[in-house]
Amino acid sequence: MQPKTASWHTLDEAIGLSPGEGDGHIGFTSPPYQNMVGPFGGVTAATLLNSIMIDQQRQGQPVSLTVHFAAPIEEGEFSVNAKAMRTNRSTQHWSTELLQSGKVAAFASAVTARRRDTWEATDAIFPDVPPADEVSVVSALSEIPWTARYEMRFIDGGPGVAANAEHPSLTRLWIRDEPARPLDFQSLTAICDAFFPRIFVRRGQRVPIGTVALTTFFHADSNLLQAQGTKPVLGVARGLNFGKGFFDQSAEVWSTEGALLASSHQVVYFKD
Amino acid sequence: MQPKTASWHTLDEAIGLSPGEGDGHIGFTSPPYQNMVGPFGGVTAATLLNSIMIDQQRQGQPVSLTVHFAAPIEEGEFSVNAKAMRTNRSTQHWSTELLQSGKVAAFASAVTARRRDTWEATDAIFPDVPPADEVSVVSALSEIPWTARYEMRFIDGGPGVAANAEHPSLTRLWIRDEPARPLDFQSLTAICDAFFPRIFVRRGQRVPIGTVALTTFFHADSNLLQAQGTKPVLGVARGLNFGKGFFDQSAEVWSTEGALLASSHQVVYFKD
Repeated sequence: MQPKTASWHTLDEAIGLSPGEGDGHIGFTSPPYQNMVGPFGGVTAATLLNSIMIDQQRQGQPVSLTVHFAAPIEEGEFSVNAKAMRTNRSTQHWSTELLQSGKVAAFASAVTARRRDTWEATDAIFPDVPPADEVSVVSALSEIPWTARYEMRFIDGGPGVAANAEHPSLTRLWIRDEPARPLDFQSLTAICDAFFPRIFVRRGQRVPIGTVALTTFFHADSNLLQAQGTKPVLGVARGLNFGKGFFDQSAEVWSTEGALLASSHQVVYFKD
Repeated sequence: MQPKTASWHTLDEAIGLSPGEGDGHIGFTSPPYQNMVGPFGGVTAATLLNSIMIDQQRQGQPVSLTVHFAAPIEEGEFSVNAKAMRTNRSTQHWSTELLQSGKVAAFASAVTARRRDTWEATDAIFPDVPPADEVSVVSALSEIPWTARYEMRFIDGGPGVAANAEHPSLTRLWIRDEPARPLDFQSLTAICDAFFPRIFVRRGQRVPIGTVALTTFFHADSNLLQAQGTKPVLGVARGLNFGKGFFDQSAEVWSTEGALLASSHQVVYFKD
């Protein structure tokens, strides 16, 4: 297991990996981050990213991460194997797999890169929302353990909070780890999957769903994440299209000061 | 090589694969789809998808595709190896690699699934643009061979066509293969990468760039693509954020009749 620090958090326990056979690592599913069925996908994604972050060969910081949720993950032990697919001067491409009983249950690819100061501009618009301390905290859902691991303040499109009048699949919320934890790439990855499924918001009812693939782009570098610290981030999520058994979700995560930290895109199976 | 049909097109030649060693396939870079340096990324993406489409084990239709452009692709031969990572009842997860001289130059992951009729809704809004035949065709760029493989009619944000006044990184265009070719998943994949780099539009100047990762979600099933046939599709692309050496691009591709066919998200390295 990775060394515990003074700031050790339930999330660090959940995504923690210890050396396994060969170059591989061993992890365990985390009861506190359990979803309705199986683990919260955000923690699976963060665990896969973590396997790259702790790899001795890694160069630079995460720029993109794509996670495939290939099969249900059973409670208990799993192994994770990360592999540098190609190392260039300033970028590195990664592949990593999560296995149970010798079969791939989830896998991911990622790009890490040396970030450097360049020309910059943000064309996405930071939404006009009240600050976090003016928005009520929503109670965790007792049947979904991982929801208690976050402090969530919904502006629209949340449990018991009406959908946006103009955009029926929109959710906006202030969110942070509960208890508070300084933001890093792993926790940001998990937060990018912490939006409730768009179809629940859009239809005002729950149907069976499961994310199949999730891509996150990291706009922030480690300095910007460090500056964010434990303050809540603003998450904005919406769907573009629902049909033929799948829907998509696009999300942005913003710093308290209005810097774009990450954008994230997923495709989700649904049954009706 | 795959069998040539009456409708055989330069694109089919470019993405064509013939059996190689073991389960692998062999392909060749295509001079007509050459970019400034190396092949047009859209054709590399379509070739990787094609390796899955022609696989005997494939079930269902593409739902998502993520391509990593890991290293420059040299002119000439390459091998492609597709692998079903996990096969479920209605979904299948794939991994595929493009190798040159034994090293991975590009790789991809994908989800294929049986599509079926379900509840449906489109929250993305089909933009208010003039029909294709009222928009001028832009001449291909002589220094970029692949641009001559498409008929492009820019509404805004194209070569010699002003950027949108409200959204400085926005491009909207009608686009189809040149000569016309019935739309399929492979050609739609290539079109999703046929937008000029957002930073060229945003800054009004060219800088060295290279896409590192590209994710495409397919909202259309094969019936909808078939109905589209050879008519031009509407592409809409914009960037959210530029900085620290990378920018992102999100795009939607719409049918002539206003059905969302695909949405696509990429992250691009740039130098300045």
